Amino acid sequence: MINRLIEKIRKTQAPIVVGLDPMLSYIPGFIKEKAFSEYGETLEGAAEAIWQFNKGIVDAVYDIIPAVKPQIAMYEQFGVPGLVSYKKTVDYCKEKGLVVIGDIKRGDIGSTSAAYAAGHLGKVQVGSTVCTGFGEDFATVNPYLGSDGVKPFLEVCREEKKGIFILVKTSNPSSGEFQDRLIEGRPLYEWVGEKVAEWGSTLMGEEYSYVGAVVGATYPEMGKVLRAVMPKAFILVPGYGAQGGKGADLVHFFHPDGLGAIVNSSRGIIAAYRQEKYAAFQESAYADASRQAVLDMKEDIAAALSHREA
Amino acid sequence: MINRLIEKIRKTQAPIVVGLDPMLSYIPGFIKEKAFSEYGETLEGAAEAIWQFNKGIVDAVYDIIPAVKPQIAMYEQFGVPGLVSYKKTVDYCKEKGLVVIGDIKRGDIGSTSAAYAAGHLGKVQVGSTVCTGFGEDFATVNPYLGSDGVKPFLEVCREEKKGIFILVKTSNPSSGEFQDRLIEGRPLYEWVGEKVAEWGSTLMGEEYSYVGAVVGATYPEMGKVLRAVMPKAFILVPGYGAQGGKGADLVHFFHPDGLGAIVNSSRGIIAAYRQEKYAAFQESAYADASRQAVLDMKEDIAAALSHREA
Repeated sequence: MINRLIEKIRKTQAPIVVGLDPMLSYIPGFIKEKAFSEYGETLEGAAEAIWQFNKGIVDAVYDIIPAVKPQIAMYEQFGVPGLVSYKKTVDYCKEKGLVVIGDIKRGDIGSTSAAYAAGHLGKVQVGSTVCTGFGEDFATVNPYLGSDGVKPFLEVCREEKKGIFILVKTSNPSSGEFQDRLIEGRPLYEWVGEKVAEWGSTLMGEEYSYVGAVVGATYPEMGKVLRAVMPKAFILVPGYGAQGGKGADLVHFFHPDGLGAIVNSSRGIIAAYRQEKYAAFQESAYADASRQAVLDMKEDIAAALSHREA
Repeated sequence: MINRLIEKIRKTQAPIVVGLDPMLSYIPGFIKEKAFSEYGETLEGAAEAIWQFNKGIVDAVYDIIPAVKPQIAMYEQFGVPGLVSYKKTVDYCKEKGLVVIGDIKRGDIGSTSAAYAAGHLGKVQVGSTVCTGFGEDFATVNPYLGSDGVKPFLEVCREEKKGIFILVKTSNPSSGEFQDRLIEGRPLYEWVGEKVAEWGSTLMGEEYSYVGAVVGATYPEMGKVLRAVMPKAFILVPGYGAQGGKGADLVHFFHPDGLGAIVNSSRGIIAAYRQEKYAAFQESAYADASRQAVLDMKEDIAAALSHREA
């Protein structure tokens, strides 16, 4: 799957992942009204609204991006009906040929991590039948529990040729509270990064490992260090756009050949129509605004990368 | 909710939580056969089997325990149908008067943690209606992202009078890989423990805080230190029984008055009928074996606590 992700990045010339993290407040009124008129102001109504909203965006951008990253929390908040929409979104994106990164940030003790890995990336055995739970292509994983929380994911990745991105340095303001603390003179995130490289070395695709890392765009200097610590790990970079990360901040996450990272933007793309910059788009054309925002982001990143090369 | 949990512990004289972590392999054949005959060997069939299995155990033990802890991964592995059974289990346990600790180990950046907190402990607004997603009483939370991953949970706990247990020192063998690393001479778990005490100080129930901690039974010496670091935090102690923790290991997690901790056992109780010790119970009486295992665990813990007092 990492090979496929890279192939799609090369083809689209866009190291971009669109974060499908729908908040009800982002969703145009006409979509919500239709959903609520069919299902009421219920969890089912909310779930239908986010699904229809997602579908519009996916239809508008699927040919110019390699991947999407639905954030499961935004669905899980609407209980079971929300997760039905999560699953519909995953399936639809796969049908459209997109690589799906489930932003689930799971991680637990061994047997429990094994259940998460099976449910999201692998298969479960029911009697004599093999079934698929959610079926994403990649998942994000929390490393706080150490190797035995991560290894069940590695096993499923090996079997299914899928991948994970392990949280190393997250994009949020307080990520340093524990992640930056010094251990033998080096921050915790570097130790985690070394483990990512170690875990990944046993699971290599053609150029990069099946085991990638999450490093926030909001911490470019740390990205530079981590790029060197984990040379074969693809880096998933959240925090661009709404969280404050800029194109110029991103260069350190990439290798000189322009590969090695994929940058996520959620709000900046899916709620683009609400920005002044895209005011020319009507609410009914929210998905066209998202397409334009993808094109602008692609240009911003390309400019930053070519500037570095110059 | 922490007050209610303590009241129920006092009433049952059992600082015990039953981990409802059903694996298909634990479930008696007659339950699986019935479920598969109705729903096929499908995710729905598996989900029906785990729900019926749970219901049997809950009916057999609800009057002698204060709380249950369903591990969501064991449901999530069966996709949406599995989560339907998770929700049914949560609702049924609440109907039976049990306190429900959702073992979800979520944790993300601020706005995303807010969605998890709303979906599991709080409410979501859909149009002019207020809806409930999963509705557990407590949830477990992963601290790797620092304060802004935890604070949205605190806000919901304050509003809803619910609680969280933050992962401090987990029960698994490799938990030390990051959690035990020394920062200014003290292990990371101690720093996390201090934060738990700090976060919890703003959210006090009568005797204990709404903010508790997870510390594994498998690390009793660390439990002793952490008991002192977080005097007002209730400690959720996994790892008893199947993972190797013994009654005598547990004393350090409790205060001298016998309060301050609640010990989880999953496999040891829900799959008791498969143990040699409970071989007298037929498969059809699996729930009675679970009840006996609860009574034995209660005695084991009481003996260990009274031995300390002596």
